[in-house]
Amino acid sequence: MTPYQQLEAAFRKAALIDEASAFLSWDASVNMPDQSAESRAEQLATLRVLSHETLIAPEIADWLAAAEGSNAALSEWQRANLHEMRRAWVHRAAVAPDLVAALTRACSASEMVWREAKPKGDFAAVLPKVKEVLRLSVEMGQAKAARLGTSVYDALLDQYEPEGRAAEIDPIFADLAAFLPGAVARAIEAQAKHQAEDPKGPFPVERQRALSLELMRRLGFPFEQGRLDVSRHPFSGGTPDDLRITTRYDEADFARALMGTLHETGHALYEAGLPKAWRRQPVGEARGMAMHESQSLLLEMQVCRSREFVAFAAPIVRANLAGEGPAWSADNLYRLGIRVTRGFIRVDADEVTYPCHVILRYRLERAMIAGDLALEDLPGAWNDGMKDLLGVVPPNHTLGCLQDIHWYDGAWGYFPTYTLGALAAAQLFQALERAVPDIGQQIGRGEFGALFAWLREHVHGRASLRSTQELLAEATGQRLGTAAFKAHLARRYGV
Amino acid sequence: MTPYQQLEAAFRKAALIDEASAFLSWDASVNMPDQSAESRAEQLATLRVLSHETLIAPEIADWLAAAEGSNAALSEWQRANLHEMRRAWVHRAAVAPDLVAALTRACSASEMVWREAKPKGDFAAVLPKVKEVLRLSVEMGQAKAARLGTSVYDALLDQYEPEGRAAEIDPIFADLAAFLPGAVARAIEAQAKHQAEDPKGPFPVERQRALSLELMRRLGFPFEQGRLDVSRHPFSGGTPDDLRITTRYDEADFARALMGTLHETGHALYEAGLPKAWRRQPVGEARGMAMHESQSLLLEMQVCRSREFVAFAAPIVRANLAGEGPAWSADNLYRLGIRVTRGFIRVDADEVTYPCHVILRYRLERAMIAGDLALEDLPGAWNDGMKDLLGVVPPNHTLGCLQDIHWYDGAWGYFPTYTLGALAAAQLFQALERAVPDIGQQIGRGEFGALFAWLREHVHGRASLRSTQELLAEATGQRLGTAAFKAHLARRYGV
Repeated sequence: MTPYQQLEAAFRKAALIDEASAFLSWDASVNMPDQSAESRAEQLATLRVLSHETLIAPEIADWLAAAEGSNAALSEWQRANLHEMRRAWVHRAAVAPDLVAALTRACSASEMVWREAKPKGDFAAVLPKVKEVLRLSVEMGQAKAARLGTSVYDALLDQYEPEGRAAEIDPIFADLAAFLPGAVARAIEAQAKHQAEDPKGPFPVERQRALSLELMRRLGFPFEQGRLDVSRHPFSGGTPDDLRITTRYDEADFARALMGTLHETGHALYEAGLPKAWRRQPVGEARGMAMHESQSLLLEMQVCRSREFVAFAAPIVRANLAGEGPAWSADNLYRLGIRVTRGFIRVDADEVTYPCHVILRYRLERAMIAGDLALEDLPGAWNDGMKDLLGVVPPNHTLGCLQDIHWYDGAWGYFPTYTLGALAAAQLFQALERAVPDIGQQIGRGEFGALFAWLREHVHGRASLRSTQELLAEATGQRLGTAAFKAHLARRYGV
Repeated sequence: MTPYQQLEAAFRKAALIDEASAFLSWDASVNMPDQSAESRAEQLATLRVLSHETLIAPEIADWLAAAEGSNAALSEWQRANLHEMRRAWVHRAAVAPDLVAALTRACSASEMVWREAKPKGDFAAVLPKVKEVLRLSVEMGQAKAARLGTSVYDALLDQYEPEGRAAEIDPIFADLAAFLPGAVARAIEAQAKHQAEDPKGPFPVERQRALSLELMRRLGFPFEQGRLDVSRHPFSGGTPDDLRITTRYDEADFARALMGTLHETGHALYEAGLPKAWRRQPVGEARGMAMHESQSLLLEMQVCRSREFVAFAAPIVRANLAGEGPAWSADNLYRLGIRVTRGFIRVDADEVTYPCHVILRYRLERAMIAGDLALEDLPGAWNDGMKDLLGVVPPNHTLGCLQDIHWYDGAWGYFPTYTLGALAAAQLFQALERAVPDIGQQIGRGEFGALFAWLREHVHGRASLRSTQELLAEATGQRLGTAAFKAHLARRYGV
């Protein structure tokens, strides 16, 4: 075998171990009894160390150097694969196996305490656990920053958004932070003239599930290689050929689970559309979390909350939930789906206020990682930031700094990818509209073939062949910016 | 670390990898979409090779030799642990990693074809796949036999029943084969005078599930560390602190799922009772499959089909299934639970005919492994054997040689453990009755404390401290034999 082929074999092995971890994690969220969590954490720590050791074995560095020194015979995809292997290796080699294992255990322990503490609003209970998670995360960030030549924050961000840098995010978020407070006020004012009416529940879980399954099926979710289950925090897990998405049902509000399911379906269809020829190779993976979020938000926000989609879906919604009367009209359901409110909870936020939630977290986590904000002071800083960006202050930490799992589970540097994804989704959908001018009418007829064909050609099937910025530039003609997102808000909300 | 401590660390790591495999296997049976099977097989093969490599690393042999050479400082449990480590190492070191991976893949491929072929009775469809499984299994058996100094069959049997040998099984099975045909005839004749009446279905799955859960709870199944789910073939999986048992529901026959669930509960409570101090060490594991089956059969056959238990359970059964009338009386339910019939299906067999099914498979697999019977000739030999032992011939292969997953999934040498377990269960329960003379009355009151206290002391908590024969001799005063089983049949069936 050539050095490049040796590398392919090693990365394939590590990917298979990581797939096992993906199913153990899914199981922990969906099936596992709570008292088994400690045991599961040990299993996951073992697998993560094995995967890590596979990719930092001494021969990997030699093979990388040898393959890079003689890459003329490699195809374009193979060269991109080698580039991604080097990237993955740098992230892995920077961190000692003991630190990986300690961080995995600290995250599991912290997450379990957070699950109890969140409903009680008891930030003090989880504070020592999350401090340990932050301490180890910063230690990891420092180790990676030294190899990548970046700041600690950029090194952590780079794990989720390859080549993402705070210096590029800062002007984008500054632009949004200046624009959004006014836009939110204008959207709320415009909607006040014609308020949406809430359909009356309760909506039984089984009916909501049937509705979710039917719309997933219409959108092309491959149930022969995937499932929909229930977990506390919805997510998209599993592998490209065994997609495991989850939701949670609220019998008083069917839209919450439904839109969550459609969001996760967007993530899952990205995975399903990755090139099979590059399965289990770095270049065959999804292109970072901003692109991943762009695919969930393109489906949820650009497609499924559009007037055309709601017109198609309304009869299906009514049939599954036995809905009757004016609250169930397509027009009212559309207005419900785009209702703007100044809320406390990120995952329930509309697309206009959502970036405010993300900008708050981005500012706070940068300050905490830099050591400028102590975790003890997070609750106060959270509330100040909410007042500043959204004009509301949460009455307790359940609705405040305890709401998201991310920091408690070690995902420091993750938050900005949500809004980068929203911007990318708007930019991609704008390009898609130029390429398929009647895409809106097609969606209105429940025809999604052209939509996913375009996405597979320009996004899914390209996997990690290009950087996020290159991929966007080739698909849309532009690097990531705020223009398409603002145009989208202007068209939908008149702001 | 001492060599012994190094060994503990290595075996702990392998055990954690094996636990991950256990959950992936459980998931494959309970959740996984069929089209994801090939991908799952790759994941499992990777984990099995990793576990294997952990235990055959060159230093393991050195540590074993060093620890065995200076074991005076070790405790009784540590010495037994070292003995089990050597045993496990011999089984592992005998087989090359490539063979392990090939066998894992062949079993997955064969099992998937078997799943399709079984309902169609299409033995020819699965023949090439199972031939490959047998070929690789024999290759593995030969490699192990060379190290163990046994026959190929004993080497395979030894994987499931440590120190189990055909030379010990042969006289036991010969005794049963001589006794049972007459006993079956006498039992059927005796029962003909007073036939049990079948309660009328259908019995909705949700009610059956509620009944199973209630009886599991009464018996002490720890739901905070375990679950009951559905799979095609019932099994007990997971780990001692995350017990995953499965059943399958038949709306026409509630007893099938119920008794299956109680059987798997017996397996699960054995795992739950293993000593926590020896978790993830060889000596802390259950003592082979005969003892495992003895715990499921002790609960199912000795306890749950007893007159006393049925008297306790009958009101719970009636309440959950809305049963009314004479068919639901404790007396009738008892007679239903001990009904003897000459059937085709092992897993549906009563305890009198069951050993006939096992003896058939034992004879056939010994002949196939020895090369005296070609797999092509299995269907005919199966039907001849059924006629000989049970006096019935299955009308198709669905009810014949395709019924059990074992051979198609690589479990050659496993079958005799079912009947060894039935004999051990009778022997253990007889000893328990001597130690706790009113155990029957306690069971009749739904009190299972003394039952499980005795089992924890004499079986569960001793894990693999002793060999099966030593454990039985210490708990019952005798090595494994047929006397207690025959006495049990005499008492319950008058044979």
